[in-house]
Amino acid sequence: QSNVTIYGSVDMGYAYRYDSNNRNVDSNSAIDGGQAQGNRLGFKGVEDLGNGLKAVFLLEQGFGVDASSDATTAAGTNKSISFTRQAYVGLTGGFGTAIAGRLYTPHFSFVSAIDPFSAGTVGQYKNVYGGGLFDPTRVDNAVAYVSPSFGGFTVTGAYSNNAIAQESSIDNSQNNTVYALLARYTAGPVDVGFNVHRIAGASGNGVPTTMKSIDNYTLGGTFDAKVVKIHGLISHNIQDNATGTNDVQIDNYMIGATVPVGKFAIKTSYMFSDGNSAAGGNAQQFAVGGNYALSKRTDLYTAYSIIDNDSATQNGVTLRRAAVVGDASNSGMTFQQGFQVGVRHLF
Amino acid sequence: QSNVTIYGSVDMGYAYRYDSNNRNVDSNSAIDGGQAQGNRLGFKGVEDLGNGLKAVFLLEQGFGVDASSDATTAAGTNKSISFTRQAYVGLTGGFGTAIAGRLYTPHFSFVSAIDPFSAGTVGQYKNVYGGGLFDPTRVDNAVAYVSPSFGGFTVTGAYSNNAIAQESSIDNSQNNTVYALLARYTAGPVDVGFNVHRIAGASGNGVPTTMKSIDNYTLGGTFDAKVVKIHGLISHNIQDNATGTNDVQIDNYMIGATVPVGKFAIKTSYMFSDGNSAAGGNAQQFAVGGNYALSKRTDLYTAYSIIDNDSATQNGVTLRRAAVVGDASNSGMTFQQGFQVGVRHLF
Amino acid sequence: QSNVTIYGSVDMGYAYRYDSNNRNVDSNSAIDGGQAQGNRLGFKGVEDLGNGLKAVFLLEQGFGVDASSDATTAAGTNKSISFTRQAYVGLTGGFGTAIAGRLYTPHFSFVSAIDPFSAGTVGQYKNVYGGGLFDPTRVDNAVAYVSPSFGGFTVTGAYSNNAIAQESSIDNSQNNTVYALLARYTAGPVDVGFNVHRIAGASGNGVPTTMKSIDNYTLGGTFDAKVVKIHGLISHNIQDNATGTNDVQIDNYMIGATVPVGKFAIKTSYMFSDGNSAAGGNAQQFAVGGNYALSKRTDLYTAYSIIDNDSATQNGVTLRRAAVVGDASNSGMTFQQGFQVGVRHLF
Repeated sequence: QSNVTIYGSVDMGYAYRYDSNNRNVDSNSAIDGGQAQGNRLGFKGVEDLGNGLKAVFLLEQGFGVDASSDATTAAGTNKSISFTRQAYVGLTGGFGTAIAGRLYTPHFSFVSAIDPFSAGTVGQYKNVYGGGLFDPTRVDNAVAYVSPSFGGFTVTGAYSNNAIAQESSIDNSQNNTVYALLARYTAGPVDVGFNVHRIAGASGNGVPTTMKSIDNYTLGGTFDAKVVKIHGLISHNIQDNATGTNDVQIDNYMIGATVPVGKFAIKTSYMFSDGNSAAGGNAQQFAVGGNYALSKRTDLYTAYSIIDNDSATQNGVTLRRAAVVGDASNSGMTFQQGFQVGVRHLF
Repeated sequence: QSNVTIYGSVDMGYAYRYDSNNRNVDSNSAIDGGQAQGNRLGFKGVEDLGNGLKAVFLLEQGFGVDASSDATTAAGTNKSISFTRQAYVGLTGGFGTAIAGRLYTPHFSFVSAIDPFSAGTVGQYKNVYGGGLFDPTRVDNAVAYVSPSFGGFTVTGAYSNNAIAQESSIDNSQNNTVYALLARYTAGPVDVGFNVHRIAGASGNGVPTTMKSIDNYTLGGTFDAKVVKIHGLISHNIQDNATGTNDVQIDNYMIGATVPVGKFAIKTSYMFSDGNSAAGGNAQQFAVGGNYALSKRTDLYTAYSIIDNDSATQNGVTLRRAAVVGDASNSGMTFQQGFQVGVRHLF
Repeated sequence: QSNVTIYGSVDMGYAYRYDSNNRNVDSNSAIDGGQAQGNRLGFKGVEDLGNGLKAVFLLEQGFGVDASSDATTAAGTNKSISFTRQAYVGLTGGFGTAIAGRLYTPHFSFVSAIDPFSAGTVGQYKNVYGGGLFDPTRVDNAVAYVSPSFGGFTVTGAYSNNAIAQESSIDNSQNNTVYALLARYTAGPVDVGFNVHRIAGASGNGVPTTMKSIDNYTLGGTFDAKVVKIHGLISHNIQDNATGTNDVQIDNYMIGATVPVGKFAIKTSYMFSDGNSAAGGNAQQFAVGGNYALSKRTDLYTAYSIIDNDSATQNGVTLRRAAVVGDASNSGMTFQQGFQVGVRHLF
């Protein structure tokens, strides 16, 4: 709008620090933001009042680009917010795309694209997938590289030293390091990919003290036969624990379909999550829903899902999650239903 | 501005949940947002650096559209903010307008339009009106319908199950339900309306344990005779309490005038608030002020008000509020003055 | 972007309040915002769906323009945020510029312009300057006037009753009053200025109980000889304490240079901070860095700095600050290094 100018600054980079007196931890490496100058997002405007007089206003907020937590400093000084969904800056060109900041994991970008419900509504895959680090969504202090498309084939690599918003400012070895790699082939009706997401955990720093690492392996894709689009997914997840604690393994299997009928899209999916011996048994979800496009940007949506947890806990571990978006109070129950209908607008 | 693209998604709808194990409260209905996908507001941009190289940035925040409270989840995951003044999505057309989200009450939309001071400055009606649920301003998890104009006549109906940011996620009967209806006639110099706002309270859940319901009845309007605009209001408010506790009743009466003189607008109002036996006695406010338009978007404003509380408390109940915007520390005093002068800019 | 309209309102002014019952502090003067109406920043849009139907959305946030702290009110009512870097509204014209809100001090605007590192990266002047009120950056509830340029000569005057986000709403004498004056001459290659920043402290209200006042005197400037730009600064700072407590004095000396080489800018600075007897000894910093302009809005940056604190504490007072941006955990160490490299994008 002509009355308001949006402006700002965002920077990300590498930082090395050394401190002679902090002998136990005398150097630190980090991927940080706001180094060149404080990150800022501002709104400003000038109105000509005539006779040489003008009205001016300016509103400028600081923010953290590298992490999801608020950076609060002493009263009277600059307190920043965070853009908690995504925040990044980078370069793109013939070499591909390189970005740094708070990023979606390749895992989530890929799986949410395969889910018929796009990770939304009560039909979303997440409800019975096995939560937390078994379903990594975003990481802070991250860098990522996406290759150019080679005949439909792309590779995404990502690294972060902060898997779970627990970056140590004084000791790199206390960080939960993330390595992610996604190979994806998209051509004509086919979209298939294989993703590996590895977290090398730092004991007790936001992760269980017994946890050594978590590995997610996901193979999936969609095939669009026009009259129906088929969705499928196999995901193998292992939490490698220290000696004396059982490893945790979850295997997820999803099949789904989307059927376009004019302005309607009818969706369904079935997911079976096998928790094996140490992860609280099995869970399964059946979901059906649909969208009606009022335009490319506005639609009506509905979804219904039913969840069955055949054993919610085992060995004192509960990993199954409950059906309904935004209803954490009902998690872990053996049988659940959810229904939704509404309107969505994109801008 | 050409450097920045604003984008996002907002959705609202109805949700039903059922849980087999939570037997005492085994189903729940709600008007919720972010069901189809997480609500988001983003700022992004691309700059061409030449030689095929581009700089990119993206900042994306989640938000709650249905309620005023922050939705905070575990560290490392998405933490959303709220747009605490208003947030809604909806459809409008020949049938009228239907919106859902966090909404102004028809009561506030109407009364603030009748107040010569537009619910701003030290002259605002709110200072002695009787606060809280006696002057409902916004409600969460709300739906509203505004009819088309039938020869100047419109009807607004609204419903919410969350009068005071205390929605229960597990039991509908614990919510404070709101029903609102506004009939308004606007034609030529006349703008008159009658509003009913009813809150069916859930004992102790954000409202007094003894409160059963609150009803507000408001009749008012303005008449614009060009040389002077006349403002008038009568408001009857009852808090129906359980047996053993006296009901509380407040009656408000306001008259006001706005006189345009070139770029000046001179304003005055007098309000008498009758607290009756159980509501802390009476209060009255006289206010005078003015605006000078530097443009349609920028003005200078001034206001002066004087408040007299003839008995600030009675039966241990204090309902009278003090004069000055933003000065809660001085509330409840018997005699007060406030004066303001400044510049306002709309963008 | 055509899908979204940004709108809002911002106002600032003077307020006087009087309260008959609050006899010890019966009047109060303040520079406040949101008096005429609640400050707001909103995003809204309308999409035509055809057949007379339209989709609408609106997201509106309240904010405080006068102060950096969040204004939180009761649940269910309007909770505002703050624009913590800057927020102001005002008028500009032949008479100069007058603004009010949360403002950068003339001290910071001037010193950050003289610093070769522009108050960013590990090379920034702040690292060893002596922090807090010895380096005033922003003040709340402020008014400022900037004169027109008289042949390159400008004067800036500023006043605030809130030096450190501790405004009293009931007693002006409890505020930390700020008076600031900057005289600056900018012509051709020369940019020189002299700044005085005085804080008359209110004992214990956000400042040390023994502190009576702080005065900062800063003389500095740059000379741009094209092949090299020379930067220089002398700053004298005194904290006047009550009888029985030693006054604290810090003197800062900085020299620097910027050398442009095509798209490169190479920077260096040396700062010596003399803490004298009561301020923890001396500190010195040597920094070198550079920028490579990918465009006017995007650059690569790097910086390296080394800090030597010859005595970090004395008389129990530690005023020296450590090198590295965002690494408060390492403050006060005798020898430090920092290195950074990254990409910055302005939008």
